Amino acid sequence: MSIRVGIYGYGNLGKGVELAIQQNPDLSAVGVFTRRAPETVKTLTGIPVFSADSVESMQDKIDVMIICGGSATDLPKQTPYLAQYFNVVDSFDNHANIPAHLNAVDEVCQKSGTVAMISAGWDPGMFSLARLYSSAVLPNGQDYTFWGKGVSQGHSDAIRRIEGVLDAKQYTLPVQSALDAVRRGETPTLSTDQKHERECFVVVKEGADKARIEQEIKTMPNYFAPYKTTVHFISQEELNEKHAGLPHGGVVVRSGVTGKDGEHKHLIEYSLKLDSNAEFTASVLVACARAVYRLKNEGGIGAKTLFDIPPAYLLAKPREELIKTML
Amino acid sequence: MSIRVGIYGYGNLGKGVELAIQQNPDLSAVGVFTRRAPETVKTLTGIPVFSADSVESMQDKIDVMIICGGSATDLPKQTPYLAQYFNVVDSFDNHANIPAHLNAVDEVCQKSGTVAMISAGWDPGMFSLARLYSSAVLPNGQDYTFWGKGVSQGHSDAIRRIEGVLDAKQYTLPVQSALDAVRRGETPTLSTDQKHERECFVVVKEGADKARIEQEIKTMPNYFAPYKTTVHFISQEELNEKHAGLPHGGVVVRSGVTGKDGEHKHLIEYSLKLDSNAEFTASVLVACARAVYRLKNEGGIGAKTLFDIPPAYLLAKPREELIKTML
Repeated sequence: MSIRVGIYGYGNLGKGVELAIQQNPDLSAVGVFTRRAPETVKTLTGIPVFSADSVESMQDKIDVMIICGGSATDLPKQTPYLAQYFNVVDSFDNHANIPAHLNAVDEVCQKSGTVAMISAGWDPGMFSLARLYSSAVLPNGQDYTFWGKGVSQGHSDAIRRIEGVLDAKQYTLPVQSALDAVRRGETPTLSTDQKHERECFVVVKEGADKARIEQEIKTMPNYFAPYKTTVHFISQEELNEKHAGLPHGGVVVRSGVTGKDGEHKHLIEYSLKLDSNAEFTASVLVACARAVYRLKNEGGIGAKTLFDIPPAYLLAKPREELIKTML
Repeated sequence: MSIRVGIYGYGNLGKGVELAIQQNPDLSAVGVFTRRAPETVKTLTGIPVFSADSVESMQDKIDVMIICGGSATDLPKQTPYLAQYFNVVDSFDNHANIPAHLNAVDEVCQKSGTVAMISAGWDPGMFSLARLYSSAVLPNGQDYTFWGKGVSQGHSDAIRRIEGVLDAKQYTLPVQSALDAVRRGETPTLSTDQKHERECFVVVKEGADKARIEQEIKTMPNYFAPYKTTVHFISQEELNEKHAGLPHGGVVVRSGVTGKDGEHKHLIEYSLKLDSNAEFTASVLVACARAVYRLKNEGGIGAKTLFDIPPAYLLAKPREELIKTML
C-alpha cells in the first residue's frame, strides 16, 4: 500500500511534485486539483485532474495533500482550508510571516486531527536545517546565508513591467568578496545587499531608450536600489537560448570557535546548486509528505516544520537500514 | 536549573567537552571521571575530578553522562555499563559495528529506563545527517564522502612504530580530481583509496635509512598500500612548528537528478573545516546531551542516533524562537 498523495495547484511546483512522486515508489499520485477547468489541464504523467471545488469529496482517497500555491496570497488561505480535511504539506516561504502561518494552520489541525508540515523546501527548509544544526554545534559563532547564482522570478517580473521592456531574466549572485571573507572565518556584519548582487538580461523594444530603462531598473526601490546591479541588453533569441532555465542555489556558512580562548576556528558550509528551483523544492515537499504520513499514523496532530521531524521519517527505508548504511 | 553533565574519560575529547559546556549556559559540568588517580589530573576549567570507580554513587547528581572513551575497546564496554545508571552520549565511530553497539546499548536502556545517544560527532554524526537528508530529497542520485584535509592519528601512530622513525604526522586529503568530477555532477564509482591520498611528515633518527622507511610506509597493508602516498622527511622542529594541530574536515556531496527524463542536475554539498577535530566532536556531543535530557524528560527510553532526534531538541532556545529566527 503506497502513500496516496494529492497535488493541489499545478504550476511549476505542482508539476515538480508530480515528477518527484515517480522517484519514490512508496508514494502514488492520486491526481491534481486545479482552479482551472480540469479538461483544459493535461498532466505530465497522465495522472487525473480534478476541480479544486471537488477536493472535499476526496478526503478518503488521499493520505497527504501537497499544496503548491504561492506564498503571497494562496497558501495563507489554502493551507488552513485544506488542513480541515487532509494532512498537508506546503512551501510557505514568506519568512516574516511563518510564525503566524504556523499558528493559523496548527489551530485547524488541532480541531481536525490532521498533521501539517509548513515551510518545506530549501529556504525555508534545507537551509533552515543547515542554520539550526550548525548553530547547535557551534553556539559561539555566526551564520551567513547567501543565495544564488539563481533566477529570481519576482525580480524578473519587476523588470518586465518597465515601459519598453519585452522580456527579462534576473539573476541573484553572492558577492564573491563577502563570501570569501566569511569562508576565511571572518565574521563581518553584512546586510542582504552587501551579500548579494543582481545581474539582469533584458530584451527591449526596437528604439527603446536603454539608458532610461537601465536607470529605472537600478533605482527601483527594494528590488534593486540598494544592490550592485548589472544590466545587459540582449536579443530575445539569446535570452531564449542561454537563459531559459530556472536554476537557483546558495550557501549557508557558519563560522565558529571552540577552545579555552576561542583559539580554534571551525567552518560549516552547506551549499546547493540546483538546475531547477521548482523541481528541487518539490522533491523536498514529497519527502515531507512521507514524514507527515508517519507522524499521523503515530497519532501525531498539529502543524510541524522540518525542525520538529526526526530525520529518519523523511526516508522510506527502515531505521535499521539507515543506521547501517548512512550513519 | 541547568542540565548536569558528567564527563567520563579525560583525553582530548573529554577536555573538548569540558570547554564546550562553557559555551552552553543551560548546561553545567559536574566533573570528570578518570581511571587515573584523580589527584594526578588537573582540569582545564577547575571542575572536580572523580575516580571512575565512584561513578555509580553519582547517579542522582548527573543528568547526562558524556562518555569520552575510544571506539576500539572503551565504548563497547563503557556505554552499556554506564547506561545502566545514566542517560549517556557517546561518539562510537566504528561504522561497521554501529548496529551491534546500538542494540547492546538499547537493551541496557530498556531495562534501566535510560536514554542513550550513540555515534554522535561529525562522522558518524553531522556527515551522516548530510547523507540522510540529501538522500531523502534526491532519491535518484549518489552520495560521496571525502575526508580531509585532516590528521589521522591512527595512521600517524602506525608510521611512528616503524624502526628509525622518531615522530610523524599523517594527513588524509581528498583526491582533487575525484572531488572535481563529483562536483561536476558526474557519478563515478570510487573506492576509498580512489577518493583519498595520504601525505606523511616524518622525523627520523640520524643516519636512518630513509628509502627503507619510505618504502615501509607506502607498502603498509590497509593503512597506506592502496593509497597514493607522499612522504616528506622533516626535522622535529619543523614538525612541532607546522604540524602541531589536529585539524580535520571533509565534504559530503550528493549529486542527483529530477525531471521527466532526469534532465535537471542538482548538487548538495556539506563541508567541514575544523581546526580541532576533538573540540568540534565534543561540541556535537554536548548538543546531543541536551537532546537526550529532553527525550528523557518526555518519557523517552532507549538508544538513539541523530537520525531519531527532532533537530530542535539540540538547541536551548524555545521552538518558537528557532522557527522565528532560523526557519
